[in-house]
Amino acid sequence: MAKHTPTASDSLLLSRRDLGFLLHEWLHVEDLTARARYAEHDRATFDAVLELSETLAARHFAPHNKLGDAHEPTFDGERVHVIPEVGEALKVFAEAGLTSAGLDASVGGMQLPRVVTDACFAWFQAANVGTSAYPFLTIGNANLLLAHGSREQIDTFVRPMAEGRWFGTMCLSEPQAGSSLADVRTRAEHAGDGTYRLFGNKMWISGGDHELTENIVHLVLARTPGGPAGVKGLSLFVVPKYLVDDDGGIGARNDVVLAGLNHKMGYRGTTNTLLNFGEGAHRPGGEPGAVGYLVGEENKGLAYMFHMMNEARIGVGLGATALGYTGYLHALDYARTRPQGRPVAAKDPATPQVPIIEHTDVRRMLLAQKAYVEGALALTLYCGRLVDDQRTAPEPAAREEAGLLLDILTPIAKSWPSQWCLEANSLAIQVHGGYGYTREYDVEQFYRDNRLNPIHEGTHGIHGLDLLGRKAVMKDGAALRLLLGRVEDTARRATSAGGDAATYATSLREAATRLGTVTARLWQDGDPRTALANASVYLEAAGHVVLAWIWLEQLLAAGAGEGGFYAGKRAAARYFFRYELPRTAPQFALLESLDTTAADMEPDWF
Amino acid sequence: MAKHTPTASDSLLLSRRDLGFLLHEWLHVEDLTARARYAEHDRATFDAVLELSETLAARHFAPHNKLGDAHEPTFDGERVHVIPEVGEALKVFAEAGLTSAGLDASVGGMQLPRVVTDACFAWFQAANVGTSAYPFLTIGNANLLLAHGSREQIDTFVRPMAEGRWFGTMCLSEPQAGSSLADVRTRAEHAGDGTYRLFGNKMWISGGDHELTENIVHLVLARTPGGPAGVKGLSLFVVPKYLVDDDGGIGARNDVVLAGLNHKMGYRGTTNTLLNFGEGAHRPGGEPGAVGYLVGEENKGLAYMFHMMNEARIGVGLGATALGYTGYLHALDYARTRPQGRPVAAKDPATPQVPIIEHTDVRRMLLAQKAYVEGALALTLYCGRLVDDQRTAPEPAAREEAGLLLDILTPIAKSWPSQWCLEANSLAIQVHGGYGYTREYDVEQFYRDNRLNPIHEGTHGIHGLDLLGRKAVMKDGAALRLLLGRVEDTARRATSAGGDAATYATSLREAATRLGTVTARLWQDGDPRTALANASVYLEAAGHVVLAWIWLEQLLAAGAGEGGFYAGKRAAARYFFRYELPRTAPQFALLESLDTTAADMEPDWF
Repeated sequence: MAKHTPTASDSLLLSRRDLGFLLHEWLHVEDLTARARYAEHDRATFDAVLELSETLAARHFAPHNKLGDAHEPTFDGERVHVIPEVGEALKVFAEAGLTSAGLDASVGGMQLPRVVTDACFAWFQAANVGTSAYPFLTIGNANLLLAHGSREQIDTFVRPMAEGRWFGTMCLSEPQAGSSLADVRTRAEHAGDGTYRLFGNKMWISGGDHELTENIVHLVLARTPGGPAGVKGLSLFVVPKYLVDDDGGIGARNDVVLAGLNHKMGYRGTTNTLLNFGEGAHRPGGEPGAVGYLVGEENKGLAYMFHMMNEARIGVGLGATALGYTGYLHALDYARTRPQGRPVAAKDPATPQVPIIEHTDVRRMLLAQKAYVEGALALTLYCGRLVDDQRTAPEPAAREEAGLLLDILTPIAKSWPSQWCLEANSLAIQVHGGYGYTREYDVEQFYRDNRLNPIHEGTHGIHGLDLLGRKAVMKDGAALRLLLGRVEDTARRATSAGGDAATYATSLREAATRLGTVTARLWQDGDPRTALANASVYLEAAGHVVLAWIWLEQLLAAGAGEGGFYAGKRAAARYFFRYELPRTAPQFALLESLDTTAADMEPDWF
Repeated sequence: MAKHTPTASDSLLLSRRDLGFLLHEWLHVEDLTARARYAEHDRATFDAVLELSETLAARHFAPHNKLGDAHEPTFDGERVHVIPEVGEALKVFAEAGLTSAGLDASVGGMQLPRVVTDACFAWFQAANVGTSAYPFLTIGNANLLLAHGSREQIDTFVRPMAEGRWFGTMCLSEPQAGSSLADVRTRAEHAGDGTYRLFGNKMWISGGDHELTENIVHLVLARTPGGPAGVKGLSLFVVPKYLVDDDGGIGARNDVVLAGLNHKMGYRGTTNTLLNFGEGAHRPGGEPGAVGYLVGEENKGLAYMFHMMNEARIGVGLGATALGYTGYLHALDYARTRPQGRPVAAKDPATPQVPIIEHTDVRRMLLAQKAYVEGALALTLYCGRLVDDQRTAPEPAAREEAGLLLDILTPIAKSWPSQWCLEANSLAIQVHGGYGYTREYDVEQFYRDNRLNPIHEGTHGIHGLDLLGRKAVMKDGAALRLLLGRVEDTARRATSAGGDAATYATSLREAATRLGTVTARLWQDGDPRTALANASVYLEAAGHVVLAWIWLEQLLAAGAGEGGFYAGKRAAARYFFRYELPRTAPQFALLESLDTTAADMEPDWF
């Protein structure tokens, strides 16, 4: 009979044991404390903040997850109404110092490594992805300004965000410009005093309006007069909801107006808005336009914004992972306790029913979920570790390598969890049967919430273009070569280890080699129409190769460890190599054939 | 530039052109009018009822689809409240004679072929799957009673259902018995007058209570005293919500009580209920138990119920197809009208944006949807044609063959559309980008609605066991041999046709051969634990082989036809053979290896 084991946390959010394995037994995060930036920390402080995160997530975020879904924010034409539990939870989050956990000590931050703060944040995303979005955006906003803002901007805007008193947003999309940022129209005019006045409409702005904090710091892409067309003419502005007094206090209302809320299938706890800038509704002193402050230089806005977007992309992957993970633990819990049916070889209806985890197909569905969510968590935390290395590795070459790896892994870390942890959520529903389809259980919400992730922060298709059209060929293919080199390092260790690891190493090598040759073949005549015709298929195949590598890494880290936890890691690796990696063979064959089925399809043949 | 073409119906529900192609150019339904049962009909009557269905679906079902989702049925403890539009639409449906369109003339039916009534019904499912469920269940219930009920039961219960005055349900599941019908506990006691009294709880009963009709005819599985354990002791009963007077009028309330409504992620327009039988709340004359009338003989209930279940399974596949189809047409319409971005080889931001259908990746997503939904529609209509052949083919051997093919195709016709037309709905959201994730657009509802289909009428896993554990090996493999023979017939014709068809025939033959050898290999030692360990993977691989066959059939029917419609069929066939069928190679390899990864996974390793 199945019984509860200590590998699944009782909160059903994430597995503490798995996080410990990834952070300490695999990524060796304690080593980071040898670096100046993290010298104040040790393993005990890492573990303490992780434990605090789990506790606060379970106590203050999870309990209103369903409530926030059932009672999404409303706008009465004047004010946005959000259930009070959201504000209370965010107050607890901020008061625990978690908003600034990764920020510089100079703005009051704890200066924890990114890999640790990502792990902490995953607890909150698993508990309540809607409520978590507010600090998620705020932290990304603060990090951008810390990197590219002026001293004054940091003092004025980052400090109150670091304290969790103000929240931040990112304002890129417009109704006519989603994937195509080249078509952003919002204008920023010189006001003559060094500030700007912004006019335009921004769409899909998460956290764009609410009364959870006394101010909201918008980071807005807009065009200054005379700038080049397309993305090269975009500049970045800080546009606060309320202007800020010289002493840092709240001043007059800025000319940023909520035009409406979007009503989503999931992720409902986060307000998602259409904002109008410079419509005159809140004119400070009768002057038209929303007051904005230029970040850095004109026409370099998109490069700065990528600082936040890249962070957000890994964060979206992490959020997708967290939703998949909590769904998996819910399904596991259900499978251990729900009696139904009998083993295929023991059909006597007079015998008692068995828990459904005894059925092979249910185990297959649980194993698939485990392989997806633990693989995705490992990948996203690995990316967090790369952010730390890019910033603090002692050798410049190591910093550069970490940056290159991040470049090529970011589209995968965003897209792969968004696809496969959504699939995990679908399997979690399936394990629950009819119950899983009802709102009386939790898993249907995870599925609805997670469906956003392949869309925002760059759609799946956009990341395919980014990976194959840019990252795989940048610097003459240096990032891809580096990645394949890392894969080969792992395969070599696995071959030495022997056993299953050696078998998997052979499969991984084959797939990785194929990834390299397919990339070369796609670009052999340099025509992007040929190369990119199946960029999404390439993204998916490359993602599976990367995850196979990550699973082989985990298998090596698990070694011959005794007990259910390590046996589970070995079983999930086996699952990935037997059920998942082989999916790439027909994908690579299709890519190699330079297939033009989709390109050849005329619109009027549909 | 893209432009609207006549292949997509303006209603965005289904394509009239495609239906015409499948029914007339491929399935030659007019030939059925040579058979006695359909002799009153001709192509004109078929087309008229199809056109009527489209019109009524667009006018009376589609307009309240969103409303029914936003305002799901409620139960105030006394009564169920359903938005009035549902009842109005169903009145129109019944008054048009559509409830009895396929039923015998003896009960007032039109005696149309099943393939035609299925095509008609798909319009309503595409327009509003929630509202359509009421007649869907009623028709299945009536068909079961026509086949297995007594003359009196037909007169009493089928006639008012055929007229659409009463609705029907199927009551199989219980809270502790969903997939495992062996564990049904509802008791039926002899009342001494030939009737029975039922006691028990039934779960997941769609249409289980409402006030849309004056009576509800429940078909209930229950156990009589002293019967064998398991499914062999199940008997089937008619249990009306209200007892029926001798003159057919509504009598006293029967002891069937609504215990509560389930609150679903989608499919919200259909009440889904927990019903208590024999709790004493509505005791007729103070006597305990719900009055039930035995259908046929005791202990043969499950066999009778399979009459309705098999029909419902194909109907679920058809509903999944209809949801996928309308989602596809919505995505196509959006892709033709939404400007965003520029071709990869023409990035000048000064040029105007193009409709997104110009992007190869969007076309790939549309082509995938087209291949899934048109393939699924062809398969489900083919099954409808088989029902007609099983019933009316002149030669007994042809009737038997149709029955055998239906046996083996039913799990696929139910499961494949439930999986891939749900994927089509996900792609429809993806084509819409952020807009698709909002409730302001239609596609997110289709996705939520469709997620039910892999669960009800037998989960995906149950159909895997049914296909591999029963249908593929029944009668010494006769059904599978017959299917593979039909596939070979098609491949032979395709080889003669030459060109792409001949190329695809080679791929199809390989895959079909593999399906045969893999089946034999899985059962080589006759141990169901070995054979069935990956039954779901087998179901998916077999489904793709069948759909490749269906696409090759469509390609042959399209021939060298001129114009966009036929070119589109050829392109979708190409898509299926290049992107989809190759997915089966690693699935077959896994199956051939007799993989035991899932079976070996211990519950406490999770």
